[in-house]
Amino acid sequence: MQKKLYTELNRSELEKEYNRVLALYQEFLQAGLQLDMSRGKPSPEQLDLASGMVDVVASTDSFIVENGTDVRNYGNLDGIDEAKRLFSELLEVPEENIAVCGNSTVNLIYDQISQAMSHGICNSTPWQKLEKVKFLCPVPGYDRHFAICEYFGIEMIPVPLYDDGPDMAMIKSLVESDENIKGIWCVPKYSNPTGITYSDAVVHAFASLKPRAKDFRIFWDYAYCVHDWYDERDELLNIFSTCKLYGNEDLVYIFTSTSKISLSGSGISAVAASSKNLADIKQRLQVQRLGFDRVNQLRHVRFFRNVEGIYAHMQKHRAIMAPKFDTVFSLLDQELKTRGIISYYKPKGGYFISVNTLDGCAKRVYQLCKEAGVTLTTPGAAFPYNRDEKDATLRLAPSYPSLAELKKAMELFCLCVRLATLEKLLEEKGYQLNQENPGEI
Amino acid sequence: MQKKLYTELNRSELEKEYNRVLALYQEFLQAGLQLDMSRGKPSPEQLDLASGMVDVVASTDSFIVENGTDVRNYGNLDGIDEAKRLFSELLEVPEENIAVCGNSTVNLIYDQISQAMSHGICNSTPWQKLEKVKFLCPVPGYDRHFAICEYFGIEMIPVPLYDDGPDMAMIKSLVESDENIKGIWCVPKYSNPTGITYSDAVVHAFASLKPRAKDFRIFWDYAYCVHDWYDERDELLNIFSTCKLYGNEDLVYIFTSTSKISLSGSGISAVAASSKNLADIKQRLQVQRLGFDRVNQLRHVRFFRNVEGIYAHMQKHRAIMAPKFDTVFSLLDQELKTRGIISYYKPKGGYFISVNTLDGCAKRVYQLCKEAGVTLTTPGAAFPYNRDEKDATLRLAPSYPSLAELKKAMELFCLCVRLATLEKLLEEKGYQLNQENPGEI
Repeated sequence: MQKKLYTELNRSELEKEYNRVLALYQEFLQAGLQLDMSRGKPSPEQLDLASGMVDVVASTDSFIVENGTDVRNYGNLDGIDEAKRLFSELLEVPEENIAVCGNSTVNLIYDQISQAMSHGICNSTPWQKLEKVKFLCPVPGYDRHFAICEYFGIEMIPVPLYDDGPDMAMIKSLVESDENIKGIWCVPKYSNPTGITYSDAVVHAFASLKPRAKDFRIFWDYAYCVHDWYDERDELLNIFSTCKLYGNEDLVYIFTSTSKISLSGSGISAVAASSKNLADIKQRLQVQRLGFDRVNQLRHVRFFRNVEGIYAHMQKHRAIMAPKFDTVFSLLDQELKTRGIISYYKPKGGYFISVNTLDGCAKRVYQLCKEAGVTLTTPGAAFPYNRDEKDATLRLAPSYPSLAELKKAMELFCLCVRLATLEKLLEEKGYQLNQENPGEI
Repeated sequence: MQKKLYTELNRSELEKEYNRVLALYQEFLQAGLQLDMSRGKPSPEQLDLASGMVDVVASTDSFIVENGTDVRNYGNLDGIDEAKRLFSELLEVPEENIAVCGNSTVNLIYDQISQAMSHGICNSTPWQKLEKVKFLCPVPGYDRHFAICEYFGIEMIPVPLYDDGPDMAMIKSLVESDENIKGIWCVPKYSNPTGITYSDAVVHAFASLKPRAKDFRIFWDYAYCVHDWYDERDELLNIFSTCKLYGNEDLVYIFTSTSKISLSGSGISAVAASSKNLADIKQRLQVQRLGFDRVNQLRHVRFFRNVEGIYAHMQKHRAIMAPKFDTVFSLLDQELKTRGIISYYKPKGGYFISVNTLDGCAKRVYQLCKEAGVTLTTPGAAFPYNRDEKDATLRLAPSYPSLAELKKAMELFCLCVRLATLEKLLEEKGYQLNQENPGEI
């Protein structure tokens, strides 16, 4: 049913609608929901899918891997061959360009930035010795990337992110003229949080960059490489081979992990990079540690066997995730889009949906949801320095709640967006609203 | 049988002895040994002791821990409560002063130094911004500690290590006068590589230091806390509570892990520190990662249950390690000490035995062993910048080979020490030896 656009309501209609929505919201306040939609955590049901992984390496099994070493002992600083092969198939990057690491991509990325700060990249000047280091940040983006920059005092420059990727003209012009720009954050497939995937043209534009800084690198966080929830799925061009095409193979680090394939806290991660970049990484690794948990690498190899095993496993995730995405889409469409008060991109996979409210409403929506027991990601988190100038972006993470809980939470979310929008529209028409006590209109 | 001291042999006796030993060495050259005694790797037999650990968390078990969270998911940045309790019992430090981490103490330590370089310690000036940062290094010491210093450009100052700990008068005088001295490396029990344990007086001297630098820290690498191989075992005073006695609780970081208790590559590690230090560490952790592998923490808790479980488990290690240490001691004593050509400390636990040859012999012993197929730790590795000025220290790591292999390797080692010493003594008496081809005397 087509609903009336809020922006076309007159003052008396707005008032009526406000009271109606407020009453519904107050019912939610009574209901005492307790739900967390703030982070992209898999649900227990999803974790169950991979629990069998803890059984596939038993004490009665052999612990000896292909290269003849015992995974229980120290060794294989950059991972076991079997795991390199698995990631090689997954990323379509040669085995010799892969290092398999521990349970966290964020940690891999942090360590890479930390190394660049203290030692530079491939013998460049350590970044800490430079007057200024800048990173480009397609926005909205992943808050943990931005947190790493902030921690190390790297200046962040926002770059608009469109439905086919970031603004490549702007990136090219900045990267090719400013030697202080040393990197860019990319979540190229099912981007966090908008869910868009970079087009082939965008990947080519990245791969053919001629950065002013020799130590400029693309941080390609390929977190959602196989996280397709629909038949029609996004295809991402291979950045590694495309860089090679342009003689630019040192330009990119590709990071991925099984955190949202197997077990979030006990997955394995990998970095794919040119031989030169990988040698640079290993120089650090050999000082930093004696090796990663290879027993856990072996678990992954035994559980998935090969990339087909991963694809098959992801079908099971899809069966859980697709209905959740559908629920979000259908409520957003019915309740909010028809009223003309949000816009959003409909991702075909990944973990997030990013909703744009009217300007100035996002924080208020967050607060209203919070008061009724549903925690969303903090507004602004998807922007460098937490600065969402328009106060209009909210990230939804539908994975963790059950389908029934999600439906309830989304009903509340939709009410809160309506309420915040009505407040704004009424205020624009001269109403004095008491936000502390919204009933007192 | 008391043997004749080499230093008392005359030239013709030396020559005879040399030819005798050379003939024996040449037999070894023929035998084609292939043994690695370079690193403190547990033997497969020792790893078997803890292999059952991979079975104690099965997919049919609960993954929910005390605080109600699911260990398969993200969470508990500083470890699960159960694991904190285990390390609390082990280290005799309150649970709230412990963070339980991943599979590597070296990594924990590296990260701590890296954080100090980029961010300082508890809001001190980042070390990278200082003209000079120095660390005290009791020698001989652990090569991986020194490698971290070298990597970050931290100047290393050697401090003599005696049988009861390092030279505390020297340390006190340096630390209390030089603001550039920011830390000291300690392996306080069964020290790597000499195997000595710090006396109570030494621990008190450490705990009562009044460093000139507010951000000076003791890096207390308590790697061998329960690695006692004999009834009479070394007892180390609790540095944490002793520091507290002196109102000095921020002075120390205690690091330990189960790497040489459970599985070397798949253990768990912990850091114990004052609330202030721990808060400082967590500020980094929350940017650096989303949590450590908690499933593996749960495995450790289920497998050992409590500290008594760890003690009982270490008895099994002892049954394997004690005969190896005995073999080394008995061959060193019979073959070398009686000839007056080495000195060494007889550790009651840990992983290493450090042998002092006559000056100028260590590299030659290493080379002779290598040529006959036995790899020792590189000479000099136990010294900052690999500088063993006397060329007289060799680290033996007897854990990995089987008892039979170890006996063979030690027989070779003893022959090589004799040969190298004889070469030296003969050269001192005017002989021209062809070291490339020792047969050509």
